[in-house]
Amino acid sequence: MARARPLFRRVVIVGLGLIGSSLARVIRRDGLAGELVACDASAAVREKVLELGLADRALADPVKAVRGADLVMLCTPVLSFGALAAAIGPKLARGAILSDVGSVKGAVVEALAPHVRRGVHLVPGHPIAGTENSGPEAGFADLFAGRWCILTPPPGTDARAVDRVAALWRKAGMEIAVMPPAHHDRVLAITSHVPHLIAYTIVNMVSDLESTMRAEVIKFAASGFRDFTRVAGSDPTMWRDIFLSNKDAVLEMTGRLYEDIALLQKSIRHDDGETLHKVFSRARQVRRGIVQARQA
Amino acid sequence: MARARPLFRRVVIVGLGLIGSSLARVIRRDGLAGELVACDASAAVREKVLELGLADRALADPVKAVRGADLVMLCTPVLSFGALAAAIGPKLARGAILSDVGSVKGAVVEALAPHVRRGVHLVPGHPIAGTENSGPEAGFADLFAGRWCILTPPPGTDARAVDRVAALWRKAGMEIAVMPPAHHDRVLAITSHVPHLIAYTIVNMVSDLESTMRAEVIKFAASGFRDFTRVAGSDPTMWRDIFLSNKDAVLEMTGRLYEDIALLQKSIRHDDGETLHKVFSRARQVRRGIVQARQA
Repeated sequence: MARARPLFRRVVIVGLGLIGSSLARVIRRDGLAGELVACDASAAVREKVLELGLADRALADPVKAVRGADLVMLCTPVLSFGALAAAIGPKLARGAILSDVGSVKGAVVEALAPHVRRGVHLVPGHPIAGTENSGPEAGFADLFAGRWCILTPPPGTDARAVDRVAALWRKAGMEIAVMPPAHHDRVLAITSHVPHLIAYTIVNMVSDLESTMRAEVIKFAASGFRDFTRVAGSDPTMWRDIFLSNKDAVLEMTGRLYEDIALLQKSIRHDDGETLHKVFSRARQVRRGIVQARQA
Repeated sequence: MARARPLFRRVVIVGLGLIGSSLARVIRRDGLAGELVACDASAAVREKVLELGLADRALADPVKAVRGADLVMLCTPVLSFGALAAAIGPKLARGAILSDVGSVKGAVVEALAPHVRRGVHLVPGHPIAGTENSGPEAGFADLFAGRWCILTPPPGTDARAVDRVAALWRKAGMEIAVMPPAHHDRVLAITSHVPHLIAYTIVNMVSDLESTMRAEVIKFAASGFRDFTRVAGSDPTMWRDIFLSNKDAVLEMTGRLYEDIALLQKSIRHDDGETLHKVFSRARQVRRGIVQARQA
């Protein structure tokens, strides 16, 4: 059987970390690009990418890398996007698509849009998938399977360009949702950003303990804490950028969280077992909803 | 080869939930008791226990159940311990051991000790193992394998009694640590109780959202939130009792947590990426410590 025509002639992935390298593996596996170009500032990463056979070429300079691309996918920490877009924007060919995988979308659209010329399609996206590991060796093609990818194209974006990006993520095994960037950022503040903020905080409390206690906390790490340390093992630069780029939603949700913790503290202090039981039972229901949603 | 003599003549497990039924499975698997008696207030649980072959007999009344036992293991939510001990204390034979699996130890010792007669050995314990599931069907013999069991015998407790309880948990695959109850409670407040408190809080925030948003949060549950919902899926009664029984340590650690969240909030508000990166990198180090401790 003849091989189907690839989705893209030339895909350039900028940043070959966990997500970028996993996407590269999907593109290789399914032959989705005529040519796959890797772009990474780190010589070690470029070497590793070629060694693993994840791309046809690996370049350091994004301006050179994006030449002739019909899809450029930004997979670096989101605070790098402004400077990147300023550099590559003028070089993107008419009809090319500029997309990304950043975990925030409002700030990303703001950073990219001014540098996107007429005729170039901006299709920001967020494949909601990941592990706590980083780097091109940590990636794997199945990372995205069964998960959601949210696309946040600005109003008026060419529907065919959106469809092509959606087709790429569908090939990776993802379901597609489209929504405005601000809405994405509020949903993700709750489901991902604030949980990470808390996980980082709890894990850090341990660093402040006297040393015997610290050793024991690590030794006796129970399920709650162990799960938190896994969440808090994620890449520090990526998460710094996420929090600084989704300030408003994160601070709002953290404020709500305070109020809710205060209620539980008060219940504990005043031996109000009834309130505690009610709150915990409600949480169990939400858990069941999640389990059902993933089964459905 | 002749079967080794069992560790205990008659073991009574009070409360056949996740932990109690898992311990019963270990005792059955390894023939650790001449007779294994299950005691549970729920007729449905008793029926299930006999159906699964987890005990020789299943009784509702703890006073009848503990007759002739050389080990009584309390596996019910900890706030039930006071009334249970008052009822069974006078019935325990000389030389019998009263132990438990409660997740708090100071309050447990306070609840049990006044009802333990001379000649009966009180050996409180906490096998640090679990899942978010409850009930006798949820248990499995490997639940404890490779994890720690903390014993908190009062000063002057007969060493042979402590050794026998330790031997039981070692058969379950656990390593044993001995420490004072108050110390246990401070360590567990950080590694388990406060993380659960936060997980319950975050998951509950979702219940308060407007319904579209709530549906989407569940649909797009990312790794952070999904992990939290799992932690928050645990038994509400058990956790109510834990929080009410470890008030001081939980409130102290929650207070520390507030200060640390406030620091991150301030860093986000003031675009202080350097502090965020430092805090996140430190958390990653703690994660590495945990991974190493489990490998060692």
